[in-house]
Amino acid sequence: MRVQHMTIKNGMKVKELVNEMGRAGVLGAGRVYKATKLLSEMFQDHEMNVFLSMAGPLVAGGMRNIISDLLKEGKIQALITSGANLTHDLLEAFGGGHYHDLQPGDVKVGHIKDIYTKTEDFEVFEEKILKILESITSTRRIFSIREFIHEIGKHIEDEDSIIKNATDNNIPIYAPGIIDSMIGLQLWMFTQENQLCLDAVADMHHLSDLVFESERIGAIILGGGVPKHYTLASTILRGGVDAAIQIIMDRSEAGSLSGAPLEEARTWAKAQADSKLVTVIGDATILFPLILAGAL
Amino acid sequence: MRVQHMTIKNGMKVKELVNEMGRAGVLGAGRVYKATKLLSEMFQDHEMNVFLSMAGPLVAGGMRNIISDLLKEGKIQALITSGANLTHDLLEAFGGGHYHDLQPGDVKVGHIKDIYTKTEDFEVFEEKILKILESITSTRRIFSIREFIHEIGKHIEDEDSIIKNATDNNIPIYAPGIIDSMIGLQLWMFTQENQLCLDAVADMHHLSDLVFESERIGAIILGGGVPKHYTLASTILRGGVDAAIQIIMDRSEAGSLSGAPLEEARTWAKAQADSKLVTVIGDATILFPLILAGAL
Amino acid sequence: MRVQHMTIKNGMKVKELVNEMGRAGVLGAGRVYKATKLLSEMFQDHEMNVFLSMAGPLVAGGMRNIISDLLKEGKIQALITSGANLTHDLLEAFGGGHYHDLQPGDVKVGHIKDIYTKTEDFEVFEEKILKILESITSTRRIFSIREFIHEIGKHIEDEDSIIKNATDNNIPIYAPGIIDSMIGLQLWMFTQENQLCLDAVADMHHLSDLVFESERIGAIILGGGVPKHYTLASTILRGGVDAAIQIIMDRSEAGSLSGAPLEEARTWAKAQADSKLVTVIGDATILFPLILAGAL
Amino acid sequence: MRVQHMTIKNGMKVKELVNEMGRAGVLGAGRVYKATKLLSEMFQDHEMNVFLSMAGPLVAGGMRNIISDLLKEGKIQALITSGANLTHDLLEAFGGGHYHDLQPGDVKVGHIKDIYTKTEDFEVFEEKILKILESITSTRRIFSIREFIHEIGKHIEDEDSIIKNATDNNIPIYAPGIIDSMIGLQLWMFTQENQLCLDAVADMHHLSDLVFESERIGAIILGGGVPKHYTLASTILRGGVDAAIQIIMDRSEAGSLSGAPLEEARTWAKAQADSKLVTVIGDATILFPLILAGAL
Repeated sequence: MRVQHMTIKNGMKVKELVNEMGRAGVLGAGRVYKATKLLSEMFQDHEMNVFLSMAGPLVAGGMRNIISDLLKEGKIQALITSGANLTHDLLEAFGGGHYHDLQPGDVKVGHIKDIYTKTEDFEVFEEKILKILESITSTRRIFSIREFIHEIGKHIEDEDSIIKNATDNNIPIYAPGIIDSMIGLQLWMFTQENQLCLDAVADMHHLSDLVFESERIGAIILGGGVPKHYTLASTILRGGVDAAIQIIMDRSEAGSLSGAPLEEARTWAKAQADSKLVTVIGDATILFPLILAGAL
Repeated sequence: MRVQHMTIKNGMKVKELVNEMGRAGVLGAGRVYKATKLLSEMFQDHEMNVFLSMAGPLVAGGMRNIISDLLKEGKIQALITSGANLTHDLLEAFGGGHYHDLQPGDVKVGHIKDIYTKTEDFEVFEEKILKILESITSTRRIFSIREFIHEIGKHIEDEDSIIKNATDNNIPIYAPGIIDSMIGLQLWMFTQENQLCLDAVADMHHLSDLVFESERIGAIILGGGVPKHYTLASTILRGGVDAAIQIIMDRSEAGSLSGAPLEEARTWAKAQADSKLVTVIGDATILFPLILAGAL
Repeated sequence: MRVQHMTIKNGMKVKELVNEMGRAGVLGAGRVYKATKLLSEMFQDHEMNVFLSMAGPLVAGGMRNIISDLLKEGKIQALITSGANLTHDLLEAFGGGHYHDLQPGDVKVGHIKDIYTKTEDFEVFEEKILKILESITSTRRIFSIREFIHEIGKHIEDEDSIIKNATDNNIPIYAPGIIDSMIGLQLWMFTQENQLCLDAVADMHHLSDLVFESERIGAIILGGGVPKHYTLASTILRGGVDAAIQIIMDRSEAGSLSGAPLEEARTWAKAQADSKLVTVIGDATILFPLILAGAL
Repeated sequence: MRVQHMTIKNGMKVKELVNEMGRAGVLGAGRVYKATKLLSEMFQDHEMNVFLSMAGPLVAGGMRNIISDLLKEGKIQALITSGANLTHDLLEAFGGGHYHDLQPGDVKVGHIKDIYTKTEDFEVFEEKILKILESITSTRRIFSIREFIHEIGKHIEDEDSIIKNATDNNIPIYAPGIIDSMIGLQLWMFTQENQLCLDAVADMHHLSDLVFESERIGAIILGGGVPKHYTLASTILRGGVDAAIQIIMDRSEAGSLSGAPLEEARTWAKAQADSKLVTVIGDATILFPLILAGAL
């Protein structure tokens, strides 16, 4: 089929723009269209459980409500993410924020590219998470990571919080690397004087049950790292996902899983032989909103 | 200012999506918003001449009509591009095409990533460009590259052709590396038995006149290479561009001009000290339609 | 200082090549020289504890002996890595391998870029790791991840094994994301009928003791992901590392920690204000052997 | 074949290091070995003409002597490069330099990543190139670009100059985009009051003669852009190169020729069906010296 040329019109809708990209059908534009179409199919397939994997500073980068809305609307059945994204969710749930332009007098602490954070927000974070840890551990000492996050969600009032929305809707959050975050740092300090064991293995039983009870599994993979691998590997005993889109910036040549094409997952039984797979190269804060707006 | 979180709604317009990205304001989403806002300002400033630089297979990739529309609507005052993009424009003007899915029986020739071409289209191209060369050189033997392309445009009937639209609207196309293309190959064969001198220096006088008569200059830079450098360098004698957006995939560490941040152009007087500059990292076939739809 | 031009000679030593790169002093060559010089200083500073972070398929990619030699020679005092690298180490310790060219008749299973694996090797892996798990848990049920890996090391005979060499030399291996690997899969299956709790938090106490007793800390960061972040974050309570080199392929624009410049770590107190930091962009299987050979 | 693990030894030679990479045989290390082996074969094949394509700031980045030595030793039979690299060669030939560390009092002008230049050096450049232009055009007004560069070479005394060494050894330099450089800017100013026509087409006849008289053709491609394409395309009428190594940083997904795998050249008859092709991803200032030192 011939590459048709896109036309851009004043006032056009996102769906129309994505359709224009589909008429072109090649390079990045073609991939955006294919990912949008596949995501739409995934959302419409009510026998498909959709796992969302999220690495990179997507919560700090303005995607918190997008994820919370997906949880509220029942569009995803599991969230796999990093301790950092959960930390950023809590930082905001406790009244703090992320900033692209600090005011004079603000004491800034670390930044992620052009996202700034404030010392006072982390102080509030530490105080509040400590109280939650005390409350959670008052009656129980051993948790799987998922259970631990679920418990935290019960103590959050912010209606936009990803953790709260996951807890309220009983959607599991898996964060196998949670220790590697500010939450992990607080856990370390807390466990110097208190007992708490986060069982790193336990969630795999819960996750495998979810995998086995799924008629079909789809994955939305934003960024790479542990969340990407854990999401794909969780399906290995049933022969892999049935459908997946990934939005990544890493490249494949050095062999990192983060940059690996989804097709490689087929060779590991992490994607079915006949699975539908679309990779789009680029920044997830641009591409996921675009693809999601086209798919809804 | 706080990072606000984007909300994605069913049926939303591209402008609304880009505004959501602006509320986030950071990472790629923030850059898309800033680029869109700056492009909108560039289009609205009627004393600003806008130069469009285009490298990479953007014509083959479905952006031919977008460029032609910008020419028709007077939104750009100069186009700087590669011989390849001009070749792809002519290939289609002569009835050929680019394909993402060849039919059984089609004899395919080279491909660019997932864009395929057909042998028969190139045969028609050769035949037609030869006739145009004969016609053009019947009364004249020395051309600047811009003049040469302008003359070609007089022989094209396809209303969607970039070259035709540039000629019809008297907008110059500069292609300093034109020889490095299928057009160049035809020129080589033609000049084995015919006289034709393409003067590589001559266009700089025309371009510098355009630069000096511009109250302000803005640049839209899609991809890198010679077109990017030529566009920026053309403004060096007036201290550089006043505004520019660039959409690039290359990275900066190895020092290639293609991957250089626009801020580096300031140190070479290729961008004014107070110029507005926005770089967005990603695939131009996705990002330019998105930004343009937001800016119109 | 002027960029001096490199000279390449027949039969030259790696040290001489790296010195030539230092004479140039800019772009990638300049970074290789600076990283080599800093690594050499790190190795010579006997009051500096050196942490090696390793993500990506470096063991499968031919760097197993390099890491084992660093452990044997006491050049690194801690290893932070992924479950995948430990799996690949065990796969070879149990007699299996990684292949760039399978023989006819070999039943291949998953591949990582151009590295292939064989089904039979994974079958042996499963059988052997199961026996080790049975042995380890015969007398104890709760382990930190580091303790668990240390115990595994006691059951390995292969003198080239990273895990064995770490155990033998009492050098801790931290693998906060160990669950996300074939080892994790075996742990899941084992714990369906056996009791074993891997405490995800416990290692932070051990690691923080190591950090606090270090006069100075240097980091060698190969690849990104959890190992990179965990390594840098482990030093946050003493204000960060004193020196670090990183070799990465990821880029920084989308905000991923994997692609972040080391300078960003300073804003999080993960690198001292006056720390020496060198980033080299590229493939670690090329650059680390080159830099190491220059630094020894 | 099994991935063997590299061993790094104190005092090892570059050849030994590259051989270790060959024992691993995968990922970047494997590619470096294959590229080294192929380059060595190309140099030893006395019926192969080797074309060197060079884009990006390699002269400014410290590779001037490496290129000059290849010219002196007859290892390359053609050089295809950018106007910028030629400008940087002349800047040094006229006594100027590139700097990684300016002294107090130096008036710096533009920089390329971490390479700085001085205003006074460009002033000398302008003065000297003007004299050369006057001399060259005193008896002749029309030149091909190659002839023009060859003439410049006659006026240079610096024994390290690439242009001088090319002229002295009668090795052609093709620079189809020469106008897009500081040399181009001087040509523009010179031709405001003087007659000089650089014929952009003429070199193709010379180049095609060279191509047709070559028993075999090999290409060393450093960076992308016009030089890469021109080099490969020059061989299209004989069915492409017989061997090529390329060292690039760009990625392929957006379809730019700069990031294209060499295998794509096969579909355009720019590389023979049975050609040997190796791509290494990374910074040419690191990788080319490494590969060259291994190949000599």
